[in-house]
Formats: sequence, C-alpha cells, structure tokens
Amino acid sequence: MINDFIYDIPVRVYFGRDQLKNLGSELKKYGTRVLMTYGGGSIKRIGLYDKVVKEIKDAGMELYELSGIEPNPRIDSVRRGAQMCKDHNIDVLLAVGGGSTIDATKFMAAGALVDHDPWDFMDYSKQAPIERALPIVTILTLSATGSEMDTGGVITNPETKDKNGRLAPALLPRASFLDPTNTFTVSPYQTACGAADMMSHIIEVYFNLQDDLYMLDCFMEGLMKTIIRFAPVAMKEPENYEARANLMWTSSWAINGFINGGKRKAWSCHPMEHELSAYYDITHGLGLAILTPRWMKYCLSEATVSKYVQFGVNVFGIDPSLPPMEIANKAIDCLSDFLFGTLQLKRTLPEVGIDEEHFATMASKAVGGDTLHGFIDLKQHDVEEIFKMCMK
Amino acid sequence: MINDFIYDIPVRVYFGRDQLKNLGSELKKYGTRVLMTYGGGSIKRIGLYDKVVKEIKDAGMELYELSGIEPNPRIDSVRRGAQMCKDHNIDVLLAVGGGSTIDATKFMAAGALVDHDPWDFMDYSKQAPIERALPIVTILTLSATGSEMDTGGVITNPETKDKNGRLAPALLPRASFLDPTNTFTVSPYQTACGAADMMSHIIEVYFNLQDDLYMLDCFMEGLMKTIIRFAPVAMKEPENYEARANLMWTSSWAINGFINGGKRKAWSCHPMEHELSAYYDITHGLGLAILTPRWMKYCLSEATVSKYVQFGVNVFGIDPSLPPMEIANKAIDCLSDFLFGTLQLKRTLPEVGIDEEHFATMASKAVGGDTLHGFIDLKQHDVEEIFKMCMK
Repeated sequence: MINDFIYDIPVRVYFGRDQLKNLGSELKKYGTRVLMTYGGGSIKRIGLYDKVVKEIKDAGMELYELSGIEPNPRIDSVRRGAQMCKDHNIDVLLAVGGGSTIDATKFMAAGALVDHDPWDFMDYSKQAPIERALPIVTILTLSATGSEMDTGGVITNPETKDKNGRLAPALLPRASFLDPTNTFTVSPYQTACGAADMMSHIIEVYFNLQDDLYMLDCFMEGLMKTIIRFAPVAMKEPENYEARANLMWTSSWAINGFINGGKRKAWSCHPMEHELSAYYDITHGLGLAILTPRWMKYCLSEATVSKYVQFGVNVFGIDPSLPPMEIANKAIDCLSDFLFGTLQLKRTLPEVGIDEEHFATMASKAVGGDTLHGFIDLKQHDVEEIFKMCMK
Repeated sequence: MINDFIYDIPVRVYFGRDQLKNLGSELKKYGTRVLMTYGGGSIKRIGLYDKVVKEIKDAGMELYELSGIEPNPRIDSVRRGAQMCKDHNIDVLLAVGGGSTIDATKFMAAGALVDHDPWDFMDYSKQAPIERALPIVTILTLSATGSEMDTGGVITNPETKDKNGRLAPALLPRASFLDPTNTFTVSPYQTACGAADMMSHIIEVYFNLQDDLYMLDCFMEGLMKTIIRFAPVAMKEPENYEARANLMWTSSWAINGFINGGKRKAWSCHPMEHELSAYYDITHGLGLAILTPRWMKYCLSEATVSKYVQFGVNVFGIDPSLPPMEIANKAIDCLSDFLFGTLQLKRTLPEVGIDEEHFATMASKAVGGDTLHGFIDLKQHDVEEIFKMCMK
C-alpha cells in the first residue's frame, strides 16, 4: 500500500553563476535589517563576503554579522544568534555557508521569536514547538547536507554530548542561492565527505520495504548515479562547473522531501552517525561513509535482498541475471569501492580515532532508548554490532 | 555552458486516497466564496462532486458552480467564469477535472481581476499582462497535462481557429489534490492519450542540445520509464492504484518546470499539435502521439544523433554497442511501438480525419510566422514536411 503524503516545498532557488543580483530584492521582501551568518573565513577568501555585503548595502539594508559558526554547529552559536536577532530587531537572516551555518541559522531564526533557551527545541524530552521563525535566505557554499532546501537542522550540545536533529516547516528557507562556482574551492576531502552525505540521504530513503512510487525510485537512482559520476570529477577538477552544478542541485533534491513520497520509516545511519560526531566531532559525511556499507551488510537477508538487487542493477549496472544474494553483495562492494576507493575516505572507526569505549552508550542513544524503526528494526545490540563491524 | 535558472514551484500537493479532508481548510485560507468549475458529468458519476460539495459546505463556505467546460476549453467558458467571479465576488476558484478544466479556470482567475476580454491574454499580438489572479485550487481527475502544478494553460478560440498557450506565475495553483482513485474510471483510450501527452512534455525538454544537468536527464529518463511501465497497466487494470499513482505524480513533474533546468529552447511538437486541434478539435495527446515520432525522424542527423542514442539506451535499453544511427532509428521505432502498439493510438492524420487542406496555414501559424527555435530550427516548409510524414 502506497501511503498518502503532502508535498510542500515553497523554496525559491536562484541557481547559477549570475544570481547574486537578485539578492537585494529577495532580502528586501522581508524588511530592512539583515543578520548575515557565516563560519570561518572561507567566504572572505573566495571573495563572496565582499560581493554579498555590496548587494546588501546597495539594497539600502542594515547589515549585522555573526561569524564563527563551527562545523557540527553548537548550541552556543545558536543562542548568540537568537539574542542578536532580539537585540537588533532583525527582519531576515542570511546564512552564507554550508549545512552547519544554515542549520545553526534556522534555529537562531526560531529562537529569536521565543523566550526560552533554543536548546529546548532540540532536547528530545522537551520538543519545544517551532511554530514561527524569522525568514531565512541562504547562499550555499558546500554541496552536502541539503539544508538549503529542507525543514531540518542538527545542533550539537557539547556539555551533554547530544547531537540532535529537528524538523519544522517554519525552518524552511524562503530562498536559496546556489552558485556552483562558490564550491570551486571546496577541497577534494570535503567534496568527498559531501558526496557521502548526499549518498546517505538517498540510501536512507531508498532502502525501504514499504510500497511506494517507482518514479521516485528512478529519481533516487538518477541522483545516486549523478553523485557517483561527478564527485570524482569535482575532486580532480575543482573548477569543473558541470560537476559542481550537478552535485549542488543533487544535494538539495536528496533531502528536500520529494523522494520520500509516502515512506514513513525512520532513517538508520544518520542517528548512528550523530552519536559518533557528538562524541568525537568527526565530519558527518565521513562517519556516514564508514557506517553505511556495514549497516547494509548487517540488514541483508532473504527478506530484504530485493532492494539491494534493484540498487545494484540500476545504480551500479550489475548483471541482473546473477543470483540475488550475489548481486546484493556485489552492490555493497561497489558502494564501498566508491566511498573508500574513488572518494578516498577512511574506511574504519580506528582510522578516525574512535574506539569501543562509548559504543554501548552511543548505541543506546542512537536507538532512542529502545528501537530504531528503520529499513529493519534495530535495537541497541544491533547498533553495537554495526559499530563493531566498523572497527576493521 | 549550463544556463542559470530560477526554480520556484510553491504548489502544495495533497497526494493520495484520503486527502479531501484537507480541502475545507485549504480553501478557507483564501476567503469564503468559492467558484467550483468542472466539465461534463463525470465527476458526478464517480461520486466526487458530492464529496467536494460536502467538504465545502462543512467548511461553511458559499458555493458557486460553473460546469460544461469542454475538452480543448474555449474562450467563451473563460469569459463566463471570469464574469461569475466578478458578479459573485469570488475569493477562490476550485477546478475539479483534467487539464481542460484547470486551464480554463486559470484564465477565469486572471480575467476576474481585469476589465478587458480574457482573450487579450491569449492573443499573441496583445499579450495582455497577467500580474494577478484569484487563488486557484485543483482536484485532478486525469493524469496528462500537468496543469495542476504549472503556470500555463491553453485556450481555444473557435472563431479565429486559434489555440494559444500562455504562461504566468500568477496562474500557478496554490494547492492541488491528487487522488489516484479519481482516475480509476478514465478509459483506456483517455489513459493512453494522457500518457502520450506526458511523454511529449518530457521529450520536448529532453531532446535539446544545450548543455544542462545530467541529474535532470536521469530524472526525465525515469519519468519516461515510469510512463512506459505503468500506462499499459492502467489501461488493462483501471483500478490499479500503483499504476494510477505513478502516472499521476509523473504528469505533474513532466511539466512543472523542474526538468527544464537552464534549457531555453522552444518546444516543437506542442505548437504543431495546437494547430491540429485548433482546426480539427482532436484530442491533444493523440495529436502529439502522431506527430512526435515523425518529428524525431525529421530532426535526426549526425549533429543530433547523440541525444537519440542516450534516449534509446537509457529509456528503452537498446544495446549501446550498436552504431549510433542504428540506435537512434531503433529508439524511434520503440517509441512508435509504444504509442501505436502498446497504447493503441491511431498512427496517421487521415485516421483522425485530417487531410492536407490546411497544412500550409497550420504550419505557418505553428512557426509563429517565421521560425520555431526548438530542438532544431523549423521553418514553415519543415513543419509541412512533418505534417506530410504523418499522412501514412
């Protein structure tokens, strides 16, 4: 049975090289006082900062700035931003950066309109409602998380070692500027981590035994083929526009909700990875790359093999006449070769400095205390087993 | 070079069997007085009319009705609807039907807010601006034109024998209800015509030599494979939900603008077909089916063959090791077999009662008096040649 769903993604996307000329008119729709948020200095190095400031000034707007948003963004940055919005009566937030900057900005925009601590949004025991947020516009500089076109974000609380995600329609950006040339300076390693992140966003939805629309499966296969084709090109030729453009638009569509259709199963690798990066602050895409093939191996059975066959045949071109289990195992090998060979990502947890010390605690948190109802149901001991498979 | 583009499709889509419960709250966002538009009696026969009326009454709204919108909808229906909106101070229009009803409703919604004749919107010499329109909500009953999620519509003027299209962002529906069960009673013939229409919407964009995003080509191939797979199923098993659901969501995505990316070439078969149905009132999808393979044959050359190869290999699974021209011709044959074999559509213009009498005039109008800048440029004599190829 195909479930009902509601499709609703009213983000305007300005895609291409010459779109910044529309920034002023887009921002002015929402008022005159803009808070621009960003991370380290990379947007200054590539000259983007100056261009953005000029557009804002030319539009006659008042500019405030908040910089220093960290990778795996922290609740303190969110608190700081929410307070700035209140102090300066901000009308619109402009996030210039990758998923970390955009995620943090989303919760600043929501935090600006409430009296409580923004962590209450993220705290799973509180789940403070997010009914409104200040308008958010983004300028993307890293193709990975898809935050530029989705309703979610993930924030880390170093004190509690929590890395929690939250979705709310109010957090959807009003507009996003996707200029592939803004990703020309992304390093091969970060390009690879971004590709692994996108790949995981698709796999988390694609590997699902609920009936759904074939047309969405075709689309997901196309997105995965796009990543496989263009991530290595972008790593070798960082200024290849075609490669950067394909990866950029794919990052948005991998997670904006369209591919979900009526599927209702939870994701599996993301909750597991969030524990790894909450405890060890590793790069999200890298953690996903390490986990995903092991999780796929762990979930493979006669009951699930058909999905692996579809994946192997349609994405990697494996001969469909082979026995299903053989196709499935070959498909996992192809994915591993892509992640650890082509993308040159590290293959095991010890290689990124993670040992077994916190496996039990992290696994317990990943399953929310009991069961993770994903592609297959996972209990704490299942997740611990998957973590252990990542040790070698 | 990949062109810049703006993506902006803020339509909320309620997809599935049990969504009508959201109709009242959706309509009430826009006011209290609703004009419901529909065609013949089919929405009464399938029980949809009663359900819709009940939801509107339960929402406490005032209901006005305009029925009798014809296939290839005429400007007189538009005039009538626009006048009703003015007379009754309508707040929101609810189109219940297929593309004809929705198209007509769009121009009623625009016509309600201007003083001039609605045909001035369609008249290519006038192009009256469409800056505003009353809000439009749709309930789709036929998977074909994609009008439920796009900014366009096509209206016929029987007096002038014009069938003209117009696009304007203000015409985009605010919300569309896509319940595949509402298409269960669509006949095999109308299902086939709808499939041919969708197929053409994709081919018109896919066959393009401008550089664009590979991920969009993959998506288009997935949409075409979806139509090829499920149209015959829906013809044989009219109540097959999976088939109807795939066709329905594909109809929207075939033309909502996403697949266009940065492509700027005009369409070719649609302008030619609009002349056929303006002069002979044939079903749009049928006219497209007859024209498309001939147009493809006419455009095939060493300069264009690569696109046919991609199409043949990725959509029809033709052996990529064959010579390119052989793949291209096989691909056209596969498409013809699908349209005239699987879908059982008529193959030639004489079979639908069209002779050569108006070829010169229709060809001249199709190229807008001079040149149609599509996949390849077409002059009047080219279009006449393509029409002639459709004679046998």
